Amino acid sequence: MMAQHDTLWINATLSIITEKGMPETLEKAAIACKDGLISLISSMQDLDDVSINLASTVIDLEGKCLTPGLIDCHSHLVFGGNRAEEFNLRLQGHSYEQIAKQGGGIMSTVKQTRAATEQQLEHAARNRLALLVSDGVTSIEIKSGYGLTLDDEAKMLRVARRLGDTSPVTITTTFLGAHALPPEYANNRSGYIDLVCHEMLPKLHAEGLVDAVDAFCENIAFSLDEVEQVFKAATGLNLPIKLHAEQLSESGGAELAAKYGALSADHLEYLSETGVRAMAASGTVAVLLPGAFYMLRETQKPPVKLLRDYHVPIALATDINPGSSPVLSARLMMVHGCQEFGLTPEEALRGMTINAAKALGKSDSVGSLQIGKAADLAIWDVEQPSELAYWLGGNKAESVIKAGNCIYQRPENLHI
Amino acid sequence: MMAQHDTLWINATLSIITEKGMPETLEKAAIACKDGLISLISSMQDLDDVSINLASTVIDLEGKCLTPGLIDCHSHLVFGGNRAEEFNLRLQGHSYEQIAKQGGGIMSTVKQTRAATEQQLEHAARNRLALLVSDGVTSIEIKSGYGLTLDDEAKMLRVARRLGDTSPVTITTTFLGAHALPPEYANNRSGYIDLVCHEMLPKLHAEGLVDAVDAFCENIAFSLDEVEQVFKAATGLNLPIKLHAEQLSESGGAELAAKYGALSADHLEYLSETGVRAMAASGTVAVLLPGAFYMLRETQKPPVKLLRDYHVPIALATDINPGSSPVLSARLMMVHGCQEFGLTPEEALRGMTINAAKALGKSDSVGSLQIGKAADLAIWDVEQPSELAYWLGGNKAESVIKAGNCIYQRPENLHI
Repeated sequence: MMAQHDTLWINATLSIITEKGMPETLEKAAIACKDGLISLISSMQDLDDVSINLASTVIDLEGKCLTPGLIDCHSHLVFGGNRAEEFNLRLQGHSYEQIAKQGGGIMSTVKQTRAATEQQLEHAARNRLALLVSDGVTSIEIKSGYGLTLDDEAKMLRVARRLGDTSPVTITTTFLGAHALPPEYANNRSGYIDLVCHEMLPKLHAEGLVDAVDAFCENIAFSLDEVEQVFKAATGLNLPIKLHAEQLSESGGAELAAKYGALSADHLEYLSETGVRAMAASGTVAVLLPGAFYMLRETQKPPVKLLRDYHVPIALATDINPGSSPVLSARLMMVHGCQEFGLTPEEALRGMTINAAKALGKSDSVGSLQIGKAADLAIWDVEQPSELAYWLGGNKAESVIKAGNCIYQRPENLHI
Repeated sequence: MMAQHDTLWINATLSIITEKGMPETLEKAAIACKDGLISLISSMQDLDDVSINLASTVIDLEGKCLTPGLIDCHSHLVFGGNRAEEFNLRLQGHSYEQIAKQGGGIMSTVKQTRAATEQQLEHAARNRLALLVSDGVTSIEIKSGYGLTLDDEAKMLRVARRLGDTSPVTITTTFLGAHALPPEYANNRSGYIDLVCHEMLPKLHAEGLVDAVDAFCENIAFSLDEVEQVFKAATGLNLPIKLHAEQLSESGGAELAAKYGALSADHLEYLSETGVRAMAASGTVAVLLPGAFYMLRETQKPPVKLLRDYHVPIALATDINPGSSPVLSARLMMVHGCQEFGLTPEEALRGMTINAAKALGKSDSVGSLQIGKAADLAIWDVEQPSELAYWLGGNKAESVIKAGNCIYQRPENLHI
């Protein structure tokens, strides 16, 4: 007789469930997968013997939590070198200007990314990805933006694609040519925006390297007008857009993003109520990035209460990058989201699952426990979901499941 | 021919070295162990063929960093239950008083610790210890203080001892009977201090369960006078002392600790210059605990500049406990020490190694790379020591060595 389920996990605490007629969190529950998709969600009480007998494998979780695999919806995972020494200088009191004069700042990463081979970039990014997976990540978005030439942006995006093709993780790519003005265009801003819109984007898109388009709207990066040109070019190619907005000052970027129906606006420390209202109207997700907030020692916090009041979905992400957020754990950002921005543990978990899926336009297929969605799951050695936003550091994932297959299992030698 | 070295690691960046005539950090270097002790430290240039040929095992670290194993010199690793739900309530705006009235706060941990069996306490503590080891820890101090009766304090300390006996980690125990006033003594403070000093401490010491004595000097805990009685009892038994001091208010606890020649005074957010001077004179280590500072969202920072000016050794620790510091990574506290308290990465590494060893009175045998010290080592997948205080989260330890033996090796399945 054919197995009805490939794997059945029993005695679990399940969260976040979006299956109709069920609560968001269910204790003493069971979940199963078949052919890579979730095939059953049930309380233990309602679980019938047929389901148990017709599962190829049954795993007793003994009360542990099972959640959707974490989704990191904002990352700069691919980059050359690192900037630990720059943090060191900052801690010794050196200013940003001094550091930039000594060759630091984002341009040092651009230089190292341009100098690196694809193999070097891939090797380093794969090691970082492995750490993220071992802490529960099953999907990640990866941005370009440290190449800033056609060839170097293509190089970054090819590395991201290859990671997607050769690892079990689902990877979506975002073209972020408008991340910073490269030195070659220091006196020709419009020339660079033209290059981004009319050469880089069409060519990279034609090569199948672009799933979405992003830009950095800020005093130190690009203006509203410049960003709008990028959005027009993206919209012309039917590509979804995202935006780094309102991180260091109020720019109106969120409204612009909303006007173009952006999937998400990200950072948002200086987001105004007008911006929140616009995002609510357009269904744009607010992606909060507490790692950068913490490592830059910022004090202005995103308007979480307004986002709640207007029912804007809140996502969390690592923003992993070498300059402002050298973050190697997605779960840790749930703790930070609560401690720094006052999210509740439930909001933090939604922020790393269903709302992160929305920020990638993927909430039909991943991000929650629902029959028919991908069986992308994380099993944690915690008893209550709130513990995921509580334990500061430490790898709490016991198993990570991608499309029904175990892609990470905590090693036995951890039991000393 | 007898092997001159059991294991020789070559092509490493070594830090923190305290071997005479050598810099604190040495790139392109080699280190070896024999019979559990460090037997050689050398630049690759000075390494002779004899040393290489007479090593049983040679491991090429290809430029990776090797440091002393991390030492967690302040922990409450043994406890019952957890308080994730209490954090949840706090994030939802509940006050400490409301939470205490609902049965939360330290007394909820006392209740759960008293209710737990030794096996339950040991199992939970062992799991937490395994996570700490997998991120580089080779020695840890464990305090009692959630029992608050003779039997329950003994239970906690026996669990700590057994962890030391049955795991590869070196564990030192600290009796913290004067952690909180138990409800049974709500109207009899002096009765409880008498119990701590004249019954618990002598009996626990006679059973060999006490390596040091600690107390919590604070408005919400014990007064200077009460703490001094504990110190006198400890001194009478020739036991070294430590103190939770100046965390939430300036109490003069640091001066008192210094007067009794304490190994360390811990927390120290409100430490005065008088206190710093007293600690400098007595050689008392300042143990900073950025996890509790972060999770309690404190703003008053310890006087790092004064500690530097007076040459007081600064240590860092996890303070792992369920109420204020649910920290499961010692390395992460190095990042926090830099970001929150402005330590340099070098200070953070010294804080988790040589100065932590001083805080435990063990700096003769562990805490730095020096010939004759224990071969307690951590090998990291980073190229520069400053990266240890840079990557936020993620398990960066590749191997952890205790007395020359590998006790943790990053699993192969991390290479996705």
